[in-house]
Amino acid sequence: MTAVSTLADSPEQVETVMAAASAAAAEVSAATPSTRAEWLEAIAADVEADVEELTRIADLETGLGPTRLSGEVSRCAQQLRFYAAVAVEGSWLEATIDHANGATPDLRRIRRALGPVAVFGASNFPFGFGTLGNDTGSALAAGCPVVVKGHPAHPDTHARLLDLAAQALSRVGAPAGVLGGVSGFAAGQALVSHAAVTAVAFTGSQQGGLALWREANARDVVIPVFAEMGTVNPVVVTPAAAAARAEEIATGCVGSFTLGVGQFCTKPGLLLVPAGSGIGDRLVAALQGAAPGGRMLTDAIAAGYDAGLARLTAAGARVLGRADAGDAAAAAAAAAAAAVLSVPASSVLTGSAVLEECFGPVIVLVEYADQAERDRVLGCLQGALVAGVMSGGPRDADVAGLVPMLAATAGRVTVDAWPTGVATTWAQHHGGPWPATSNPASTSVGAAALSRFTRPVAYQGVPTSALPEALRDECPWPIPRRIDGRLVVPEVTS
Amino acid sequence: MTAVSTLADSPEQVETVMAAASAAAAEVSAATPSTRAEWLEAIAADVEADVEELTRIADLETGLGPTRLSGEVSRCAQQLRFYAAVAVEGSWLEATIDHANGATPDLRRIRRALGPVAVFGASNFPFGFGTLGNDTGSALAAGCPVVVKGHPAHPDTHARLLDLAAQALSRVGAPAGVLGGVSGFAAGQALVSHAAVTAVAFTGSQQGGLALWREANARDVVIPVFAEMGTVNPVVVTPAAAAARAEEIATGCVGSFTLGVGQFCTKPGLLLVPAGSGIGDRLVAALQGAAPGGRMLTDAIAAGYDAGLARLTAAGARVLGRADAGDAAAAAAAAAAAAVLSVPASSVLTGSAVLEECFGPVIVLVEYADQAERDRVLGCLQGALVAGVMSGGPRDADVAGLVPMLAATAGRVTVDAWPTGVATTWAQHHGGPWPATSNPASTSVGAAALSRFTRPVAYQGVPTSALPEALRDECPWPIPRRIDGRLVVPEVTS
Repeated sequence: MTAVSTLADSPEQVETVMAAASAAAAEVSAATPSTRAEWLEAIAADVEADVEELTRIADLETGLGPTRLSGEVSRCAQQLRFYAAVAVEGSWLEATIDHANGATPDLRRIRRALGPVAVFGASNFPFGFGTLGNDTGSALAAGCPVVVKGHPAHPDTHARLLDLAAQALSRVGAPAGVLGGVSGFAAGQALVSHAAVTAVAFTGSQQGGLALWREANARDVVIPVFAEMGTVNPVVVTPAAAAARAEEIATGCVGSFTLGVGQFCTKPGLLLVPAGSGIGDRLVAALQGAAPGGRMLTDAIAAGYDAGLARLTAAGARVLGRADAGDAAAAAAAAAAAAVLSVPASSVLTGSAVLEECFGPVIVLVEYADQAERDRVLGCLQGALVAGVMSGGPRDADVAGLVPMLAATAGRVTVDAWPTGVATTWAQHHGGPWPATSNPASTSVGAAALSRFTRPVAYQGVPTSALPEALRDECPWPIPRRIDGRLVVPEVTS
Repeated sequence: MTAVSTLADSPEQVETVMAAASAAAAEVSAATPSTRAEWLEAIAADVEADVEELTRIADLETGLGPTRLSGEVSRCAQQLRFYAAVAVEGSWLEATIDHANGATPDLRRIRRALGPVAVFGASNFPFGFGTLGNDTGSALAAGCPVVVKGHPAHPDTHARLLDLAAQALSRVGAPAGVLGGVSGFAAGQALVSHAAVTAVAFTGSQQGGLALWREANARDVVIPVFAEMGTVNPVVVTPAAAAARAEEIATGCVGSFTLGVGQFCTKPGLLLVPAGSGIGDRLVAALQGAAPGGRMLTDAIAAGYDAGLARLTAAGARVLGRADAGDAAAAAAAAAAAAVLSVPASSVLTGSAVLEECFGPVIVLVEYADQAERDRVLGCLQGALVAGVMSGGPRDADVAGLVPMLAATAGRVTVDAWPTGVATTWAQHHGGPWPATSNPASTSVGAAALSRFTRPVAYQGVPTSALPEALRDECPWPIPRRIDGRLVVPEVTS
């Protein structure tokens, strides 16, 4: 058998790809985590080997530049290997055994793969959150076939990644249908309403994510949508930080909010600064010196950025400064010039469009008079993927109070680090309260990403031969299990 | 401070109760798991001490009988103690530490209490899934204040439980607002749309659960609804089982589907039997001998049962037999007589209203010609809380194939045990695919119930003094933590 990766571009072809995914579901789920890890490692190796061509194709389609893109290819391969390792470690299965005890029966629980998962690739990370990114990697690791709807901004990258993966999967004997691809709006719609799809993973705009979420909620059998959507990520500069290192903060902030032409879901969108700190002027200066603007991913995204800036100024934000879009970029389509805007904190305390996301290289300074006003602004914010504090160092007394306040609105809290940059590790959480995600407990990056694509099943009085292997008294794999209430971790043998 | 337990019965009074819950949220979340365990244990002790009066009041309101009700009071107390122990054990926090390593920063993750939780009590379990049942116990254990909307079928039981809990909580110094109560339809609606409510837990009908789910989805800030809804739970009798012990199966089945006048969400609703097994006749005989029917919880529920029976027969199910409702019960309001219905498998293969839930003491026999037909019926079923196999013993070759098939549709699979009866243990899962629950990965019973009321937060580069205690390098509590990828379990000291 060979692994299928048909690029369906019509609802009819979705049927073909989904039929293959459905047919593969039982085998993918029943494969051991080690087997699935081999599949992921094979894909990772082939992706790495193709870095030059992938970078070339993606740069033509996105303009994100070879340095950024080749680095993202490497990270994509690392992510696939990470999810392979997480699958093998086995904690995500939550294997739990309660032997019969007096009145309670023999009960055993494990997480089970849901079935075919639809992944909607992001515009801004063709490798990290695209065809073979975090969603696809974690779903395959958890035992689900995946059908990816590629983002229209980079169809050739999508096709190339699917081809690479199909060859790698075929080489290591993965079942046909373990990974498939579709393209186009109609195909995406057909995918979400397809009876055999069991979950949807999405990275992108609030508009797109909420549309998918509504569509999934309107199904006869409602399925979970894990939509990781853009948010306004706030960063608070404490008075001590502003006093000690305004220049450094301004430079760092410009680097963060203009990274990838501001097209990161973790872009800082609000910078809360003490009034009169002079950080606004320093930001404008840093912007002129460092960030030439650039080409956004698509004309529509560039037009959305312009409309967003107009909305922010209409809502009362003052333009402190704009970058030069750069000669080449300005002449090209989809050009965008970075911008620094400002509002007094007092103007947003009863809610304001200034507090809503504008996708692109813009940051809004919110100047607060004192701690009370700063805290009131924080109480007005929407849920966010990430929130940060820039401190005056270890003795800055503001940090201990700010961290829990920010944790109440965000999925990740950083101190003295800009929010852009999401490491794929065991402790990572890339999610956050509504509307950052449609499911505030789920993450699209890190070890916990696998469990999105599973649900627990309890087995009561089931004879050994009919139990999943990981729930038998003698488990064939060295995984952590909870036995009669006690967590038992296998000894490290390496 | 004393613990508040106002019984609000209007939207205005909901404001008062919610204000207390909101004010308590930070303190409840910041209390150590051991402290919250003390609160739960204090409530458990007072509930147990009041078993006679609680039983008396609940029996007046529900007619479920003193034996069942006093047993349920004991289980309620045991549940509260179980969630206390789970909170202290600490695995649910998923404390994870990744020290900085090359390119990756210091990242630490923990689950954080969501905030005030609205619990909607069930009609059928005034203690197990009511004011102080599994939902309330697990939410308090996880660090969330709880506001319970009592079921209209037992308002006095609700009030008594709230009073008991308030006294217990006050005695051990829990903050005011940790537990509150409301009553009435309007109050329930106001609760779900209240801005400070962060999650909803519900046990009851699909109609009720879906209404709440829709309401929560229509909020500005959408919140998770964990609705555990009624389902048609299938039990498959294998040919070997039918041949070996038809009589025993018939008796056991009648005991299970008439338990509590059929008012269990885990009631077997479909019994798949080999055609010609004679189990139908035996069921009718067992029914006449053993189950006199009885009083249902409310007139509306009894009327719903009658309508449900009419729907089943209109859809083609044949009545094999009905029990006598019992002299006293038949004369009373809300009387219900148990019923055994039957359809050939061939009539449900393209979907049928026979496969939809009827709440009450009825079971539908589906007679299958052979394994292929049986498997096709299983492929037509909705998601269910639980599904079972009655086998012919350890050598019955059908079991190994049936268990994974049933695991694909149900949250729990039993072998040679009737589905009614849900033990509160580490391995329990009481949930299931849509429409069994609105969130197929969540359970309302067992250790995993806590995580519903939490969401993870990652801390990046946060100094020790600003970290939650469980994420500091030196953790003050002996809880399992994952450190640099390795799960570390504290040694048992007892």
